[in-house]
Amino acid sequence: MTAPLFQRLALIGFGLIGGSIARGARLQGLAGEIVATARSAGSRARVAELGVVDRVVETNAEAVKDADLVILCIPVGACGEAAQEIAAHLAPGAIVSDVGSVKAAVVKAMAEHLPPNVHFVPAHPVAGTENSGPDSGFAELFINRWCILTPPEGTNADATDKLGAFWRGLGANVEIMTPEHHDKVLAVTSHLPHLIAYTIVSTAQELEGVTSSEVLKFSAGGFRDFTRIAASDPTMWRDVFLNNKDAVLEMLGEFQEDLSKLTRAIRRGDGEALFDHFTRTRAIRRGIVEIGQDEAAADFGRKHPQLGKTAAE
Amino acid sequence: MTAPLFQRLALIGFGLIGGSIARGARLQGLAGEIVATARSAGSRARVAELGVVDRVVETNAEAVKDADLVILCIPVGACGEAAQEIAAHLAPGAIVSDVGSVKAAVVKAMAEHLPPNVHFVPAHPVAGTENSGPDSGFAELFINRWCILTPPEGTNADATDKLGAFWRGLGANVEIMTPEHHDKVLAVTSHLPHLIAYTIVSTAQELEGVTSSEVLKFSAGGFRDFTRIAASDPTMWRDVFLNNKDAVLEMLGEFQEDLSKLTRAIRRGDGEALFDHFTRTRAIRRGIVEIGQDEAAADFGRKHPQLGKTAAE
Repeated sequence: MTAPLFQRLALIGFGLIGGSIARGARLQGLAGEIVATARSAGSRARVAELGVVDRVVETNAEAVKDADLVILCIPVGACGEAAQEIAAHLAPGAIVSDVGSVKAAVVKAMAEHLPPNVHFVPAHPVAGTENSGPDSGFAELFINRWCILTPPEGTNADATDKLGAFWRGLGANVEIMTPEHHDKVLAVTSHLPHLIAYTIVSTAQELEGVTSSEVLKFSAGGFRDFTRIAASDPTMWRDVFLNNKDAVLEMLGEFQEDLSKLTRAIRRGDGEALFDHFTRTRAIRRGIVEIGQDEAAADFGRKHPQLGKTAAE
Repeated sequence: MTAPLFQRLALIGFGLIGGSIARGARLQGLAGEIVATARSAGSRARVAELGVVDRVVETNAEAVKDADLVILCIPVGACGEAAQEIAAHLAPGAIVSDVGSVKAAVVKAMAEHLPPNVHFVPAHPVAGTENSGPDSGFAELFINRWCILTPPEGTNADATDKLGAFWRGLGANVEIMTPEHHDKVLAVTSHLPHLIAYTIVSTAQELEGVTSSEVLKFSAGGFRDFTRIAASDPTMWRDVFLNNKDAVLEMLGEFQEDLSKLTRAIRRGDGEALFDHFTRTRAIRRGIVEIGQDEAAADFGRKHPQLGKTAAE
């Protein structure tokens, strides 16, 4: 039996990501002990019930005691304050990380509180579902997904490598980039799509002449796809938009320009422009499936019941 | 053994929808004989190879001969011309239908060619995948989905009922509405989502500072969801936007207003407005899952490989 990568893993926050890390790390034996905490007493009680960590403690300060890996798994807007709370309690040499979907603002908010004798290696696993809470996590969430590390200049290379090994142990691929580049890339692959989905779902809720019951019934025409990510955790996403404002607004500008072009083509009845556009976008789907970032099966592999002859009566 | 609903079903066009009708109708015994045709010789040869219909013929005129149910399963822009081609060859009393995603324009384009001794009952099964072509169909596509019938005023009620029974035989629920109302409902539940998806996918392809390889790799942050419907058949979707221009532009106007509101909240750092908005949109997802129009499983039920301990090495 090989020794675990870390002696004690402290998870601050136990939602979808924290809960998935706990389950995966336990399954893979990546930590000798897993200690977790959560903000609400109800969540802590639920985590204890689930039995997927070794200990549940009440405070962030208590959680990080003697931990050689500390991961903040909380909304990005709460990371600065949490860093401040744990700073005085961190073990020398500990690796401190997070899982935030925004990096530049979070790195800044956390870094100013952390003592010089710990290694701060920010991370963002690009994976998730629309669910949240202690029950929503699962060990397989990170398999074949990418985890982006954004170590500040001067970060100990061994610490970065060790955190990378941890994420690979959870099944993820690891990439390193700057916080600024991360925020630009994720603005387009994640933040803008969420913003658009949140928008269109609310548009559909408030129309004159189309009832919400009709919107639900006929949602298989495409709309339902958008409702999934528009069901994501509101606190997490509020914080993402507040903390990655510039990159999101830039991408939104690009999106608006492209939408204007397509709108003009529709208004003018320019079938050729529409056809050309719709042909180009097919290729990117193929690319995503080819590199294993989505199901090859049609319709995301959604299940279909069987037809029974009785249905024909 | 009960007699089939129709003696001879003629399918004009054999893409995702035509091919799914053929497979479902055969499985359920809904037609004594299924005759199909397709525009290209290559597609016809493939349909014959697949062996899911009784006969493949070369022309639309030939296909409809002696058929008591004729369904046009072709892009909406091609329906008028096809109606003209088959008009003189239709059997008296035949039911003529289609599967177009737009109704008002198609009904008009077809109706003017059809003889008074047939029953024209336009239909739109709200179901699909991103795939197209003769191989893409499957018998279960319509199960628990809605098929909307838009019979013009004065349509024979028995014909409407009989076509409804056919669709129920394929597993669908049936609803009747006017072509104009259909076009408005579908503009929001299908056409606008496709337009937005087509837009954002092209936006992501042409950014400065973010490579297309990065867009693919980190697409699991949300973007990949949009690429699925942006991989839909370009001809079909060109025709949808050309033929439902007014309703689509109206919905687009509503969408733009809502997007402006959210953009303003981001720019001003109005976290409360964002949180409220993101909380409201969660409910609609629950509604769609509750009425069986999408998977209850997280992430559309996408599969996840298992973690093996070797991954931790």
